[in-house]
Amino acid sequence: MPTPAYAAPAADQPLAPHTIERRTPGAHDIAIEILYCGVCHSDLHTARNEWGNTIYPSVPGHEIVGTVTAAGKDVKGFKVGDTVGVGCMVDSCGHCASCAEGEEQYCENGFTGTYNGPVFGGENTYGGYSTSIVVDQKFVLRVGHKDHLEAVAPLLCAGITTWSPLRHWNTGPGKKVGVVGLGGLGHMGVKLAHAMGAHVVLFTTSPNKVADGKRLGADAVVISKDAGQMAKHANSFDFILNTVAASHNLDAFLNLLKRDGTLCLVGAPEHPHPSPTVFNLIFKRRQLAGSLIGGIRETQEMLDFCAEHGIVCDIEMIAMRDINTAYERMLRSDVKYRFVIDMATLKKPAVGATPNAV
Amino acid sequence: MPTPAYAAPAADQPLAPHTIERRTPGAHDIAIEILYCGVCHSDLHTARNEWGNTIYPSVPGHEIVGTVTAAGKDVKGFKVGDTVGVGCMVDSCGHCASCAEGEEQYCENGFTGTYNGPVFGGENTYGGYSTSIVVDQKFVLRVGHKDHLEAVAPLLCAGITTWSPLRHWNTGPGKKVGVVGLGGLGHMGVKLAHAMGAHVVLFTTSPNKVADGKRLGADAVVISKDAGQMAKHANSFDFILNTVAASHNLDAFLNLLKRDGTLCLVGAPEHPHPSPTVFNLIFKRRQLAGSLIGGIRETQEMLDFCAEHGIVCDIEMIAMRDINTAYERMLRSDVKYRFVIDMATLKKPAVGATPNAV
Repeated sequence: MPTPAYAAPAADQPLAPHTIERRTPGAHDIAIEILYCGVCHSDLHTARNEWGNTIYPSVPGHEIVGTVTAAGKDVKGFKVGDTVGVGCMVDSCGHCASCAEGEEQYCENGFTGTYNGPVFGGENTYGGYSTSIVVDQKFVLRVGHKDHLEAVAPLLCAGITTWSPLRHWNTGPGKKVGVVGLGGLGHMGVKLAHAMGAHVVLFTTSPNKVADGKRLGADAVVISKDAGQMAKHANSFDFILNTVAASHNLDAFLNLLKRDGTLCLVGAPEHPHPSPTVFNLIFKRRQLAGSLIGGIRETQEMLDFCAEHGIVCDIEMIAMRDINTAYERMLRSDVKYRFVIDMATLKKPAVGATPNAV
Repeated sequence: MPTPAYAAPAADQPLAPHTIERRTPGAHDIAIEILYCGVCHSDLHTARNEWGNTIYPSVPGHEIVGTVTAAGKDVKGFKVGDTVGVGCMVDSCGHCASCAEGEEQYCENGFTGTYNGPVFGGENTYGGYSTSIVVDQKFVLRVGHKDHLEAVAPLLCAGITTWSPLRHWNTGPGKKVGVVGLGGLGHMGVKLAHAMGAHVVLFTTSPNKVADGKRLGADAVVISKDAGQMAKHANSFDFILNTVAASHNLDAFLNLLKRDGTLCLVGAPEHPHPSPTVFNLIFKRRQLAGSLIGGIRETQEMLDFCAEHGIVCDIEMIAMRDINTAYERMLRSDVKYRFVIDMATLKKPAVGATPNAV
């Protein structure tokens, strides 16, 4: 099935219209018309080969919301017309310990990414910057939201990446939770931790983000460059979710954890963080951890929770043809807080569209 | 009560005979005649002011086994003649969350160390390089071992420092546990993890420690400089206890943890470890943690377990006057695996003793 898409032809070239092939749905497959696709920083890393493993042409996009257009004969629980989501994974081995426990993101044989998937061999996968996708039912999520589906799309990556560690480390009522950084991930971390009932403190370097942090659900906002403000929170956090991928001093946050607290990193810096001070770990039995997206069962749980609590992302909608400009703005953190592509702009180019459009 | 001791008069001077004052036992106090005192690397760090906080004269020693010689009127559960132990702490605030939970080593107001204790104010404390000590009953441990009491002494620090994290992270039957380094701490880590029923792998840089590692209870010994041997254990450990305080590459061990595994540091390096790779944490939700000695309740549990299972340390007994030589040998790792001072040599100097002896 030839399918319109936007692809990076090479690391140093802008994304441009491209036609990809989608497979004919098999017995377990679901075909989805893509309505919206969020723009994740990983899309940019991959399009520009910043992780050194990109296969070209590369079609990014793993925050997908759409409508079921066909379902294979063995598909259960989905029917044509359903609103569904697809996140960062479209397959995994299914039989390792992590898959068996519903933690497909840690598949010991390597999950297949929604785009640039076959890191460990196999055919390339093409993501959500396209009009449709065909996915095994095991990796398709039900979307319970009735409207604002465009703002649901980023839940499939930014939402689950923050939800999973918040749940794994048992945050909720009675817990003091920090969120470091107010970007695509951070703003979801604040919303979700607040909705879970935790006392939420946002850490940001930008005084102009204080008001927004509180609007999103933070009980307090701390300017992390202000040592005096930081000192007031020493030894007081149960859990801190650190969404900042740029290299920075982790000790400043480790010192804010109480005994047995955890500082969890969900972003990997291009240049290493300064080495954390071992005494800061030893003297309070603190932990420095990492977390990767979340499993399918957990992603469904997150989507259901968000539908029930009316939680969506704060987004700015763009047309497909504006993706390269959006990447540049994303690099300047000039987005509150996630770009989402209206995929109708790929199918039905506006009159007077730029030459870059389909 | 004037009490013979050995003290460092200054950072750059050897330990020498010195007389200290012990308080008259109060209602809750226990007076102990010290039989044996282990020699911990912390003793040397403190004697030489390597942590920059030493108060002189400094009397080290926090691996103490002795006999009760007097008990205050409100002392319960101890009587004159009992064999008892004293570890790294002689007091704590008693009312913070950590103290309330029996985790006095994490006292939020700072525990009082057995020596060089008043880091946060108060009178200096003098440790086990002396003939007697007076300690509040809350910080005195019962020793169930009937013989080889000299080899029990290092359990009070080397034993509990390895026991506590092994218990906290639930090692035991069905768990694969690594121990990095075969010194005073490491040899106890191997013995205890083995006795708890875990599958134990010792990591050492010294091929000549393989046989000893197996004798002590390791199911396998891996030469950590051998990348091929290391690779065979990738993603397989539930828990790794890292006893090496010298700066080294933590990624080599993080990579050996399975999903949700923990690498726990119990030694702090003088120069920082190279910064661990964040991807190694994220991709398996691994944790880098630290742990500090153990609480009093836990120390008693460890001593009872060791008495029941016939576990003691591998030691080399020395006379008090040989402490400075022992420090030099300890710096060369020339001890299997802990020096213990026979305190009879302080009370009753041998005929023809060196000028350094009492």
